[in-house]
Amino acid sequence: MSGAAGSSKRSVAEYIDKQAKKVKGAEEVLKFVKRLADEAKRNPVAARTLADLDATKYPPGTFREVVDKDADAVLDEVESAMYEAALTILAGDGFAYDVPSRGKVNQVYIKELDRIVLRESTSKRPFASTSSCRKAAVTTRILGLVHELCAKRIHVTKRDLFYTDVKLFEDQSQSDTILDDLACMLGCTRTSLHVVASEKGVVVGRLSFREDGDPIDCRRMGVGGKAIPPNIDKVSNISSDALFILLVEKDAAFMRLAEDRFYNTYPCIIITAKGQPDVATRLFLRKLKDTLKLPVLALVDSDPYGLKILSVYMKGSMNMSYDAANLTTPDIKWLGVRPSDLDRFNIPAQCRLPMTDEDMRTGRKLLEEDFIRSNPDWVAELELMLSTGEKAEIQALSSFGFQYLSQVYLPLKLQEGDWI
Amino acid sequence: MSGAAGSSKRSVAEYIDKQAKKVKGAEEVLKFVKRLADEAKRNPVAARTLADLDATKYPPGTFREVVDKDADAVLDEVESAMYEAALTILAGDGFAYDVPSRGKVNQVYIKELDRIVLRESTSKRPFASTSSCRKAAVTTRILGLVHELCAKRIHVTKRDLFYTDVKLFEDQSQSDTILDDLACMLGCTRTSLHVVASEKGVVVGRLSFREDGDPIDCRRMGVGGKAIPPNIDKVSNISSDALFILLVEKDAAFMRLAEDRFYNTYPCIIITAKGQPDVATRLFLRKLKDTLKLPVLALVDSDPYGLKILSVYMKGSMNMSYDAANLTTPDIKWLGVRPSDLDRFNIPAQCRLPMTDEDMRTGRKLLEEDFIRSNPDWVAELELMLSTGEKAEIQALSSFGFQYLSQVYLPLKLQEGDWI
Repeated sequence: MSGAAGSSKRSVAEYIDKQAKKVKGAEEVLKFVKRLADEAKRNPVAARTLADLDATKYPPGTFREVVDKDADAVLDEVESAMYEAALTILAGDGFAYDVPSRGKVNQVYIKELDRIVLRESTSKRPFASTSSCRKAAVTTRILGLVHELCAKRIHVTKRDLFYTDVKLFEDQSQSDTILDDLACMLGCTRTSLHVVASEKGVVVGRLSFREDGDPIDCRRMGVGGKAIPPNIDKVSNISSDALFILLVEKDAAFMRLAEDRFYNTYPCIIITAKGQPDVATRLFLRKLKDTLKLPVLALVDSDPYGLKILSVYMKGSMNMSYDAANLTTPDIKWLGVRPSDLDRFNIPAQCRLPMTDEDMRTGRKLLEEDFIRSNPDWVAELELMLSTGEKAEIQALSSFGFQYLSQVYLPLKLQEGDWI
Repeated sequence: MSGAAGSSKRSVAEYIDKQAKKVKGAEEVLKFVKRLADEAKRNPVAARTLADLDATKYPPGTFREVVDKDADAVLDEVESAMYEAALTILAGDGFAYDVPSRGKVNQVYIKELDRIVLRESTSKRPFASTSSCRKAAVTTRILGLVHELCAKRIHVTKRDLFYTDVKLFEDQSQSDTILDDLACMLGCTRTSLHVVASEKGVVVGRLSFREDGDPIDCRRMGVGGKAIPPNIDKVSNISSDALFILLVEKDAAFMRLAEDRFYNTYPCIIITAKGQPDVATRLFLRKLKDTLKLPVLALVDSDPYGLKILSVYMKGSMNMSYDAANLTTPDIKWLGVRPSDLDRFNIPAQCRLPMTDEDMRTGRKLLEEDFIRSNPDWVAELELMLSTGEKAEIQALSSFGFQYLSQVYLPLKLQEGDWI
C-alpha cells in the first residue's frame, strides 16, 4: 500500500490527524458545493424531454413518452380509450386496441437526451383474432381495474392487481406486461395508474413535504429516517434549504450520516434505497431534483456494482424505457468512493478486495456503455479500477475510525469540489 | 371450490356484499379486541425471564441471559473485564478471558419460558496458547472498540466494526462471532454494545415516541410510514391509545392498511418487517409489547413460510439464543390468513396455490416444533394446510376487491374474535 499510513499504528494515527486538520469550517467546505448548487439552479434541466429537442430533427409523433397525470386525467384517458374502441366496433371494424410496441427494436438512444427513448409505433390488438383475443380481454379487464383505482383514489401493488382476477391473468407476468402496455397506451406513468411499487428507500435531512396531507419534517426523523412513500402523487409542498442531495448506496453509511446529523453542518438531503434502487426511490429522487433544482452527489462502493446502481438512477432500466423521463435523474455527480480515492485516502491494503472475474466482466461491459463513455473522467476511473483489479466498500473508510466518513472524508471531498 | 362465490360474477358480487354487511360498527367490531387488550394489560408478561422461575428448580447461576444496559453501564462492564484480566496477570495466571460457551449443547428449551435458554458454562480463553491467542487478541480489540463506541455514544453496523481492523479480523464472521461472545460475557445485548442491525421495518398508526430527541407521531406518517430505528436505545417516551398491534408480513398489505388509515377506525399500531424479520424490528416490537402491554395480532401468508416468520418473532434464532429474552415477543395471536380461512372466506380456487415439496417438508418439520405443538389450534391449522396441500398469500383477498382486506376481512376477524 502507498502513502503515509503504511507502516505503524502511530503513523496511521498521525495520518488521520493530518487529514482531519485539513477540514476547514463549514463555510469553506461548502464553497464549491454552493457554486455547484447555483449552477444547478441556473440550468435546472438539460434538454430532457422530447419537446426540448430540435423539432425538425425529431418531429413530434416520432417518439412516445409518458407523463404523470392526476386521477381525473387518467379516468378521462381510460374513458376515451373505451369510447374509441366502441367507435371502431360501430364502424364495423371490430373491437381492437392500438397498443404501442415496446420491444427492443423500438428503443433508440438519443444523444441529446443521453437516454433511451421509445419510437412511436403501435400495433393492433383485435379481440377477434385467436392470437390476440386473450390479450385484448386482459387489456379490457385492467382498463376497468385502473378506472376503479383512480375513481376510488386508492393505490395497489402489481401483485394485488394480479390477484383480482387470477383466472383470467393466469400468471403475474401477464398482468404486469399489459399494465406497462396500458401506461404507454394512455400516455401516463404506471404510478399515475395508481399501481405502485413497494418502497424500501429512506430519507433524512433538510427536507419537508406533505404526504397524504401529513406534514413530514425530515430533519426530525431520528436515525431511522422517513420511509420513502410508494405513491409519489401523494407527496406535495416540497421545500428545503439544502445545498445538495447526497445519494448513498448503503444503509450503513446512511445510518452513520443520520446519527451524526451530517445535514446540520452541511445542509443536504440524504437518500438511500439500501442497494439496488426501487421505482419509488427513483421517482422520489427525480421529483426532488425537479422541484428543488439541487445537485445530486453520489456515494457508492468503488466497484462495478456501485456504478451499475448509478446507471439505474441515471438511465433507468430497458423494461421501462417509455417512462425514463420521470424515473431517471441525469447529471448525478460521482463523489465517491472512487477508484482513485483508494490511494489518495490511503485505504489500507487489507480493506481493498480483489475483483472477481464477474466483476471484471461487468466492469469491461460498463466501459462500453454510453453513460460512462460520455464522461471521460468516469472512463478514467473505471479504467483505473480495472487495471488495479481492486474494489472497496464505503465501509473501508471505517478503518480510520467510525466517524472518518462523516467528519473527514466527506467534508474533504466537498471542500475540494472533488466530484466528477 | 366451495361456497357461494363459485359460480358466476353475480354470485361473487352478492357474496362480497353479504360479507360486507356482516361488518358492524367499530364499537361492536372491537368488543373482543377490547377484552383481549384488557387481559394483556392485566397479565402483561407470562413468566419470561429466569428470575420469574422457581428458584429451587432453576437456581440462579444455572443459565445465562443478557439485558439491555445503557452506555455507562457497558463502559463499566468493559472496564471491569479488563481490570479482572489485569488481576489474573498480576496473580501470575496469565492473560485470559472467561468466555461463555454458546454452542448448541448448551442451549436448552425451558418449558415455562417456552423458549431456548443458554446454560451457564464458560471456558478460558488464554492469550498464551496457540489455539486461543488470536481469539484473545480479537476479543481485546473488540472490547476496545465497544468502549470507544459507548464513550462516543455512536452506533455502527457489524460491517463497520469489521472494517476497523481487517488485518486482525481477517473475515467478518470472526468479528461477528466474537462480538456475540462479548455481549454474552458482559451480560448485555448486542444493541447495548452500540452495534446495530440495519433496519428495514416500518410502522404506522396510533403510536408516538421520541427518537434521538425528535418527536415522532406515527399517525402522521403518510402512507410510507416511519422507518423503524436501528438503535432501539434512542427510542423513548413511547405512548399510544391503540388497542392492539397488527403485525403484517408483507409491505403490500401494510400499504393497503396505511392508505386506508385502518388505524383511525380500529385503533392499532401497524408494523411490518417486509418479509423475514430483522433484529431492529423484533426489538422494536418487543419494546412496544413491554411498554404498552398490548396484544399482538399477526397477519401472514397462509403457508409454512408465514409460520416460520411468526416463529422468528416468537422464539428467535438459535444463533442469538442468549438474547432471546429481548428479541422475542411471545404470545402472538395468529389472526390470519389461516388455512381454515380459505374455505371460510371462499377464496377462489385459482388464488390458492399448490404447496411445493419444499413447502410440505417445511410444514411437516414445523409440526414437530415446540411453539406449534404448545398450541393445539395451531397444530390443527397446520395439519389442515398439509392435508389440503394448498397455500395462499394475503393478497389472495384482493380477488374480492382491493379494499376487502381492510374493510371486510380484518373487521370480520376482529368482530368474531377469530384469532388463535
